[in-house]
Amino acid sequence: MSKKSKLKLIFLGGVGEIGKNMYALEYGDHILVVDSGMSFPDSELMPGIDYVIPDYNYLVANKSKIRGIVLTHGHEDHIGALPFLLKEIEAPLYGSNLTLALVEHKLKEHKIRGVKTYVAKDREAFTIGCFRVEFVRVTHSIAGAFALSIETPQGVVFFTGDFKIDHTPVDGKTIDLARIAEIGTRGVLLMLQDSTNVERDGFSMSERRVGQSLENIFSQNMHKRLIIATFASNIHRVQQIINCALKYNRKIAFSGRSMINIAEIAAKIKELNYPADSVVDIEKIGGIPYDRLCIISTGTQGEQDSALARMAQDDFKRVTISSTDTVVLSSSPIPGNEKGIYKVINNLCRKGADVIYQSLTDVHVSGHACREELKMMMALVKPKYFIPIHGEYRHLKQHAELGMRMGIPKANILIPELGNVIEVSKAGLKKLEPVRAGSVMLDGSAASDNVDMVVRDRLQLAEDGFVVAIVIVSATGEPTVTPNIIMRGISVPDNVYDDMKDTIVNRLRDGSYRELDGAELNRTVRKLLAKILFNRLKKRPMIVPVIVEN
Amino acid sequence: MSKKSKLKLIFLGGVGEIGKNMYALEYGDHILVVDSGMSFPDSELMPGIDYVIPDYNYLVANKSKIRGIVLTHGHEDHIGALPFLLKEIEAPLYGSNLTLALVEHKLKEHKIRGVKTYVAKDREAFTIGCFRVEFVRVTHSIAGAFALSIETPQGVVFFTGDFKIDHTPVDGKTIDLARIAEIGTRGVLLMLQDSTNVERDGFSMSERRVGQSLENIFSQNMHKRLIIATFASNIHRVQQIINCALKYNRKIAFSGRSMINIAEIAAKIKELNYPADSVVDIEKIGGIPYDRLCIISTGTQGEQDSALARMAQDDFKRVTISSTDTVVLSSSPIPGNEKGIYKVINNLCRKGADVIYQSLTDVHVSGHACREELKMMMALVKPKYFIPIHGEYRHLKQHAELGMRMGIPKANILIPELGNVIEVSKAGLKKLEPVRAGSVMLDGSAASDNVDMVVRDRLQLAEDGFVVAIVIVSATGEPTVTPNIIMRGISVPDNVYDDMKDTIVNRLRDGSYRELDGAELNRTVRKLLAKILFNRLKKRPMIVPVIVEN
Repeated sequence: MSKKSKLKLIFLGGVGEIGKNMYALEYGDHILVVDSGMSFPDSELMPGIDYVIPDYNYLVANKSKIRGIVLTHGHEDHIGALPFLLKEIEAPLYGSNLTLALVEHKLKEHKIRGVKTYVAKDREAFTIGCFRVEFVRVTHSIAGAFALSIETPQGVVFFTGDFKIDHTPVDGKTIDLARIAEIGTRGVLLMLQDSTNVERDGFSMSERRVGQSLENIFSQNMHKRLIIATFASNIHRVQQIINCALKYNRKIAFSGRSMINIAEIAAKIKELNYPADSVVDIEKIGGIPYDRLCIISTGTQGEQDSALARMAQDDFKRVTISSTDTVVLSSSPIPGNEKGIYKVINNLCRKGADVIYQSLTDVHVSGHACREELKMMMALVKPKYFIPIHGEYRHLKQHAELGMRMGIPKANILIPELGNVIEVSKAGLKKLEPVRAGSVMLDGSAASDNVDMVVRDRLQLAEDGFVVAIVIVSATGEPTVTPNIIMRGISVPDNVYDDMKDTIVNRLRDGSYRELDGAELNRTVRKLLAKILFNRLKKRPMIVPVIVEN
Repeated sequence: MSKKSKLKLIFLGGVGEIGKNMYALEYGDHILVVDSGMSFPDSELMPGIDYVIPDYNYLVANKSKIRGIVLTHGHEDHIGALPFLLKEIEAPLYGSNLTLALVEHKLKEHKIRGVKTYVAKDREAFTIGCFRVEFVRVTHSIAGAFALSIETPQGVVFFTGDFKIDHTPVDGKTIDLARIAEIGTRGVLLMLQDSTNVERDGFSMSERRVGQSLENIFSQNMHKRLIIATFASNIHRVQQIINCALKYNRKIAFSGRSMINIAEIAAKIKELNYPADSVVDIEKIGGIPYDRLCIISTGTQGEQDSALARMAQDDFKRVTISSTDTVVLSSSPIPGNEKGIYKVINNLCRKGADVIYQSLTDVHVSGHACREELKMMMALVKPKYFIPIHGEYRHLKQHAELGMRMGIPKANILIPELGNVIEVSKAGLKKLEPVRAGSVMLDGSAASDNVDMVVRDRLQLAEDGFVVAIVIVSATGEPTVTPNIIMRGISVPDNVYDDMKDTIVNRLRDGSYRELDGAELNRTVRKLLAKILFNRLKKRPMIVPVIVEN
C-alpha cells in the first residue's frame, strides 16, 4: 500500500433519502462495500417502476478493487440491490446467519451462483483487504443486526447500522453495549449513525411492549378469528404473535408470499421457533374453527396485491372477512402509503371486522433509535468525527445539530450528499471530487437504458394524456388532407376536435408544406395542436405527429 | 304539506371520506341543503384532475324544491362546490359573515351574479321552507363557524358542523355551550357529528397554545427573517402571527394568492385586524431589513406551485432562502401529502434555513374535536338518534361505537354511506331507496361527460405507456405490410420491437385479414401486440391499433 493512499468514504446511497443504503470505504486498491440496498419507488413520481437501486457505476468501474461486501442486516433497503450488483461484480459477502439466509434466497431466485458468504458471529472480526471489520450485535426490527467497527489505516470507522437500544429483546440478545463502550474507549475516528428517528424525543419502546398489546388482543378476542398483519422480516414480531397463538390454542397460517418465505427461512436457521404441527397451510384452513385460527399476513402498507388488501376486497380465496374477524395491523405507515392503508382498513371495517391499528393502540414500535438512544450511542462511541446517515436531509441536519449538542465540534461533523467522496484522516474530513451516484429505476423486464425518459413520458401521459395525429403522404409527396387524430387520457369537446383537424388541413392545403421535410412537418403539426389544446382547454398532452409515406 | 310526507336525510357527500360535505333534508316539496363542499383530488388516483365535487344530480333533478343552502363554515370542503352547483340551481345562501364573504369572492371569480345571501348571527334563526334553522356558534380552525339546530316537522336535527371546544379562542368568541345545552334539554331527535378526530383521545389543544409557540419562535429568532406558512383560511392563526410580528416590530408581507385574497377579505369585514402600515406588498420587501420582516405564506401541504415550494426551489422572485431565514410550517400534513411536504422541508434545509415544523414543536393544533370533546357534545345535545359524519368509514365506525358507550342504543345509531336516503322520524331511522351520489372530477376546461374514462386511461398510461400501431389499407382493401408502431412511456428492446412488427406483417400476409372488418382487424392487432408485450416484458400498455384507409 502506498504511503500516499487516502482513506475515502463514498456515499452511493442512504443519504438524502431513507432507502437504498450503500456506502464504500476505499484505500489504495482496496474497496469495502457496506450494505447494498434498494428502495421501493414513489408510485406517484415513478409510475410503473418496480424497484429503485443505487447507481453503483463507480463500483462496477472499480470492480477489481472490491474486496468484500459487509451487510449490517437483512432489510431490503440494505440487501435488495445485491442480486443486481452481483451480476456485475464479484465479491464475498459477510453478515449474520439470518441476513445471509435472506440474501441466499434472493440470489437463488435470480439464479446467481457461486457467491462466497461468510457468517459473522457476535464480536467476530474479518480481515477484508486492508480493513478489519468487527461485527457488533445491535437490536433492530429484524434479528441478526450488526453495527460494524472497521479498523482502517487511518483509524476506526464505526457504522451503527440501523439500531435501537432494546434491553429486553424477544430473543434475549441485547445490544452489545459493553463491546461498543470498549471500542469507544480505544478510540473511534469516525462514526456514521442511523438518523431515522432523530425527530423523536426520548427512547423507543421495547419490542416486548407490542407483545403485551398482542396478548391483550388475544385474550379479548377469544371468539373471533384473528388476522394479524406485520412486516414479514420482523421475525421477533412474528415470534411474539406465534407465542400468543400457541398460548391461546390457535393454529397458525402464514399468508402472503414474503411472509411464507421468510417464516420458512427463519425457521430453518432457528431464528423463528414453533412446533411443526402448529402451522397449517393457508390453503387448508377450511376445517379449522374461526376461534382456533390466527392468520399472520403481509400487507401492512396497503399494497394492492398483498394478502390483506385482497382479503379487504373479497379477492382472497381462503378468507372471507366478516364480523367474526378481528384484524390487527401491527405496523406503522411508511410516509406516502397512508391513503392505501386507510383504504384497506375502511374496506375491512365495512365488511364488519374489528380493525386494530397503530392510531388506536400500541401494536407497533419503531426499530430505530430515538434521540436519547442516539445520544447514548454517541456517548459510548465518543467519535472524533461524525457523519449522520440513513435519512432525508432534514434528518441529517437535525442529527448533525444533536452531535454538536453532544460536544462534537461543528468542524468535525459533515452532512453528506449522494455521490460525495470524503477523505477521512486524523486531520479531518475533506470533500473530494464527487462520483456519479443516484437512482436507477428498474422497470420490469423492459430495457433499462432510457428509463428516465420513459418515466418522464409516463408522468406527462398521466397528467394530460396523448394525441397522435397521423398524416399520410403519398410516395410523390402528396399528403392526404384528412388527418387521423387519436386521443386518450384527454377529453376534447367536438368543436375543439374539429378545430384541430381543420387547422392541420388548412396548413397542408396552403401548399407550403412542400418546402418542409418530415421533421419540420412534424414540428409544425405538433405546434399547431399544442397551441389549440392549451388555449382552449389549458391542457398540455403529449402530442405525437406521425407522417406516414404510403 | 301532506300528512304523509316523510322527513328524508340525504347523504350526497362527507361520508366515507373526509371532504366534499353535502347533505340535504327533504320534507314534501321542501329541500334544505347543508353545505356544498369540494375535495382536492388524490393526484395518484386522479392524475390531472383539478377538483372533485359531489355528484349532486339529485339536487338538480329536484331543483324546484330547494329552499335554501345553509353553510356551517367557509372551508373549501364545505363551500367549494357552490360555484358549480349555483350554475345549475337557484337558492339563497345562509351563513356567517366570513363564510359568505369567502363564498361571494368565489362566485365573483366564476362570474355568478344574483345569488341571495343572508348573514346569520349567533343564535339567529331563519325559516327556510318548512325548516327553521338556528345558527349556534362553535369554535373551529376558521372564524365564523356554526353548528345548525334545525327544527323539522319530525323534531330537531342538530348538525355539529366541524367543531372543537376551545375555551380560549383568539377572538374570544367561545363555543356557545349554554345554547347547545338548552337545545339539548328541549330535545334533539337526531345529531350528526364531526368524526374527524374520533381516533384521538382527550381534548384538542386551544389555538392559543400555538400562539405561545409562535411567541417563542419570534423571541428566539430576533436576527433572522421569519417565513411562516399556514392555512390561509385559519384567520386566527394568521392573526396570532400578525400579533407576534407587531410585538416584535416586524413588517408583514402576505405571500401566495389565497393568503393575499383571504387576508384582504377577512380584513375588510374586521375578522382580521392590523394597522394598514404594518403590511407591505411582497413585491416591495426589498428595502426591509431581514430581521424586520415576517412573511406569511401558503404552501403548508407541499403544493408544487405554492409560494413556499417555489421559495424552496429558488423559483420565487422576491425571496431567496439562506441561513438568515427561519421557516415555520404552522400546519400538519393532510394524509397523502407527506412526501411533497418533506421535499419542501429538505430543500429549505439544504439552503441553510432553520425549519420548524410539527414533528419538532407545537406549531399546530387541530380544528376538530377529539374524543372527550365529542363526548361532551353528545352529553349536552343528548340526541335520541345519532349519525356520525365527516369521516372515512373507519372514523364513522369508531364514532358509532363511541355513541354506544355514551348510552345511545345501537339501534338508534346509523353509519351512513354515500347516496343513502334515511327516513328520520320519532319511530326511528330507516334506510330508503338510495339516490345517485359520488364524485365528479373536474378536469380543467375539458369536456366533463367522460372524465371517469379519461382518468382510467391516464392511470393505464402512467403505469405502462402506450403503443399505437398504424396499419394503412388501400381503398381496395389492400393493407400495406409495413405497420408503423409508435410507443411512449414504455421501453421495448429492439428484438421485441421487431417481433411486434413481424407478427403483424405475418398476420396480414396470410391473407385471412380480408375476412375481417375494421373492428375485427383492430381487435386482432391489439391481441397480437398485447400478447407479445406481456409475455416478453410483463407490461400491459394501452394498445391502440389504427386502421387507416388511404
